[in-house]
Amino acid sequence: MTHSPRQEVTNKNKGEAAAIETELLRDYRFGQQQLIEIWGQACAIAITKAFPLSSLAKKQPTVLVICGPDQNGSIGLVCARHLRMYEYEPTIYHPQRSSQSLHQDFTVQCEKMDIPSLSYLPTEVQLINDAYNLVIDAMMGPDADCANIKEPYPGILVTLKQVKIPIASVDVPSGWDVEEASEDGIAPEVLISLTAPKKCARGFSGKHFLAGRFLPYDIQKKYELNLPDYPGTDCLLEL
Amino acid sequence: MTHSPRQEVTNKNKGEAAAIETELLRDYRFGQQQLIEIWGQACAIAITKAFPLSSLAKKQPTVLVICGPDQNGSIGLVCARHLRMYEYEPTIYHPQRSSQSLHQDFTVQCEKMDIPSLSYLPTEVQLINDAYNLVIDAMMGPDADCANIKEPYPGILVTLKQVKIPIASVDVPSGWDVEEASEDGIAPEVLISLTAPKKCARGFSGKHFLAGRFLPYDIQKKYELNLPDYPGTDCLLEL
Repeated sequence: MTHSPRQEVTNKNKGEAAAIETELLRDYRFGQQQLIEIWGQACAIAITKAFPLSSLAKKQPTVLVICGPDQNGSIGLVCARHLRMYEYEPTIYHPQRSSQSLHQDFTVQCEKMDIPSLSYLPTEVQLINDAYNLVIDAMMGPDADCANIKEPYPGILVTLKQVKIPIASVDVPSGWDVEEASEDGIAPEVLISLTAPKKCARGFSGKHFLAGRFLPYDIQKKYELNLPDYPGTDCLLEL
Repeated sequence: MTHSPRQEVTNKNKGEAAAIETELLRDYRFGQQQLIEIWGQACAIAITKAFPLSSLAKKQPTVLVICGPDQNGSIGLVCARHLRMYEYEPTIYHPQRSSQSLHQDFTVQCEKMDIPSLSYLPTEVQLINDAYNLVIDAMMGPDADCANIKEPYPGILVTLKQVKIPIASVDVPSGWDVEEASEDGIAPEVLISLTAPKKCARGFSGKHFLAGRFLPYDIQKKYELNLPDYPGTDCLLEL
């Protein structure tokens, strides 16, 4: 197969991101459980690339995974489970658990993998800096209304703005608008875009991964995603 | 983390294999959709390792994927979808489609990926030998009652016993008993064991992959699986 010359990946606005997901679920008959598993695993693999076990500053390969109440949080739970398989030591902070059975199932899978869970996030930032090598931000997804984030999330964002350890955000950094980076928001070192990068990722200067290999070619064409070729059997690549 | 010395992987009988799966679904709250996605992707990666694109005898990277009506068939469908992503050209032969919505969803995902489907299998074996580089046998799983296989599967097995291109079987070669290799059955060159190898895999002399990395440690211990360490982020390994 010949490859077309490398084009610029196009960044998507909120409506396009939602339309792609709707089409995947409705027309392509992907399941939510299936997509969350694919995305969560890709996030874990991105973490192993950005923060290999051998590169971690602390003796223990600890990672704090902060999970929101919705789909982004479910992806964080799957990411934590795979990280445990890859010999990291994730701890979950999951302040609001969804009543959705899918979200609960992913939670039980983590509990059954003996992944510890914090009952509250220390407000003293030094405790977080000392305990973990990095934080995974799986709180808000592209659906979040960032102008109306409700507690406990604003408090968590205040804490995350002060931590000195790196943050890796899933899809959209929490508190950012989907279409615009937040100047005074959290500043992740790593961003893992799911399916296609959102507009807020334009100009992102950290390590930027794209996890969208599963995407059917017709959707890629229809939405003019201009996705790059993924090497070998890799489920993600660094942009 | 220190690793215990390498022990022999234990091969499981039919009851043990079923008990592990029941426990994963009931107690660990894995979803069937999630497990099928994990297994199907692992099968596709095994095919890329056993039959790299660069090694294929034919000019086109064609693969025939024969899917049964139950879970093994669904895994074959997911495998075909991922192979398409990895730039193989799978064709599906899927003679009996399940009425189960999950199975139908996986079927639609393949159709939407433009993966062609045969309406019947040529009885003239040379046509199969000429058209494809290999056959993936995703017909019968460990649940199949191999003494009572109904048409069209016995006819397909007669054809597969005559093909000259290699066969890769998913979990249990179709027509074999879970606990015993079949002397006069099909003779796959590659076997991809899911979760844990079954007793029929003892003495298997072809390439043998194990796809079971996702398995929670407590289940590995409880069923004394003695699974080897998986390297890096690999979801499978060659035994």
